[in-house]
Amino acid sequence: MPIDPKKALGAELEPMSYECTQDKVILYALGVGCEPEGDELPFVYENGLKVLPTFGVVPPFPALMGMLNVPGMEVNPIMILHGEQYLEIRKHPLPTSGTLISKPRVANIYDKGKAALVELDVVTEDRDGNEIFFNRFGTFARGEGGFGGEKGPPPTNEAPDRAPDAVVELPTLRRQAAIYRLSGDYNPLHIDPQFAAMAGYDRPIIHGLCTFGVVGRAVLKTYCNNNPEKFKSIKVRFSRPAWPGDTIITEMWKESESRILVRVRTKERPTEYTLTNAAVELNV
Amino acid sequence: MPIDPKKALGAELEPMSYECTQDKVILYALGVGCEPEGDELPFVYENGLKVLPTFGVVPPFPALMGMLNVPGMEVNPIMILHGEQYLEIRKHPLPTSGTLISKPRVANIYDKGKAALVELDVVTEDRDGNEIFFNRFGTFARGEGGFGGEKGPPPTNEAPDRAPDAVVELPTLRRQAAIYRLSGDYNPLHIDPQFAAMAGYDRPIIHGLCTFGVVGRAVLKTYCNNNPEKFKSIKVRFSRPAWPGDTIITEMWKESESRILVRVRTKERPTEYTLTNAAVELNV
Repeated sequence: MPIDPKKALGAELEPMSYECTQDKVILYALGVGCEPEGDELPFVYENGLKVLPTFGVVPPFPALMGMLNVPGMEVNPIMILHGEQYLEIRKHPLPTSGTLISKPRVANIYDKGKAALVELDVVTEDRDGNEIFFNRFGTFARGEGGFGGEKGPPPTNEAPDRAPDAVVELPTLRRQAAIYRLSGDYNPLHIDPQFAAMAGYDRPIIHGLCTFGVVGRAVLKTYCNNNPEKFKSIKVRFSRPAWPGDTIITEMWKESESRILVRVRTKERPTEYTLTNAAVELNV
Repeated sequence: MPIDPKKALGAELEPMSYECTQDKVILYALGVGCEPEGDELPFVYENGLKVLPTFGVVPPFPALMGMLNVPGMEVNPIMILHGEQYLEIRKHPLPTSGTLISKPRVANIYDKGKAALVELDVVTEDRDGNEIFFNRFGTFARGEGGFGGEKGPPPTNEAPDRAPDAVVELPTLRRQAAIYRLSGDYNPLHIDPQFAAMAGYDRPIIHGLCTFGVVGRAVLKTYCNNNPEKFKSIKVRFSRPAWPGDTIITEMWKESESRILVRVRTKERPTEYTLTNAAVELNV
């Protein structure tokens, strides 16, 4: 078996450097659909620039593939599915430029039967050693389960049975994924029709982390008055694909002053849930 | 008078370096409205990447403001209007990456009465000294005319009286200028509502060179089968503003196998011409 939990568990990857610039911050915001209007203008204009909290997945993103170089983690990249994402903002306000160092570590390897769930924890620091972001990338390695390991905790953040307290619809563009990929995820699945066809899709799908960013905007608008400093963390499970051009419907339940449960579908396929088991924690 | 033709004419600016990357080529194409579909996909996808010919205005663009540091050219930037653009592709196929060096020179200063028309010629070369692009930036310096200089040649490329041979409508996005500006023109006029209001506009206008890129796409599609190597040069006059979200209507007259006359308006204001006195030369 290519995954050897004894070797891989706890393994640390080489720290990864990311040069943050205002342009990258703006490009990310455009990649997740911000318009240069109203109170989203500061996310795409360098004069008074604010950083979307979900930008925090960008600096450590290369760790997701870098993980496959860890001894005991020799898995065919094609068998890897990005299944879950947790992002926590550890220091506000977010910097609009400067070097960020991400330190990834294989935190957990769970046995899900058909697949292994590998959790990669990444702390991202500024040059002074301040922790800015914490990410947990949850990836399913298909065909790598059944090694007799722990199953791991059950899913959380189930959407309540009652009607949502707020629903926000945000459109994406047909070219949304083409813009988003310039923030560092160049998987051809999101732009190449032939590649998408091989994966069984009629056309390229949108990045799960792009939808994640759109959903972050919906919560930020609804519960944070578009003030990033009120946004503490976000957790999602990537359940179903969505497509560039879809309108993303974010359903939100306010469980407490600091906790919003979230579920996401699209206007185009309202019976399928794109992101599930999702929650945003707010600073109050 | 801040413009002193005796000093400024023929002055050469320091060569300017531009690091071309695939991402910049793609970002430009997205900035002028390419969709990742059909035969425009190669303009936004690094696998088989092609460079839009009008990208040629990007590497030398900083010369437009750099010009104001030339002795004899001390003009208030606010009084400068980018009035005309000529771009010639000197070597095909265009590189998708590498260092490009632009060498600007004040080529002509004409006396237009109320304004001076300053023509800045810029040759852009690759590292081996191959000429890739030639640009002529025509800028009106308002209030700087009347110095007794030559008037310069009369306008050319008048649109014929007959109906166009081809008309192409291409939509732009409300966020089109916000994307375009990441290619290097950060003038707040194109994103900042307050700044736009000071200039007398109800909202930020789109870059003339963004519209220029949209028009390049229209000609490329209609007469070049989207093959950039057939595109030799483009000349336009920026006559009226357009706005992000406008649908750009490019009217084209095929004057010969190698010469297309062009005039541009918008669906939103069909009686106003945005770009006039325009022509594209083709390689045949």
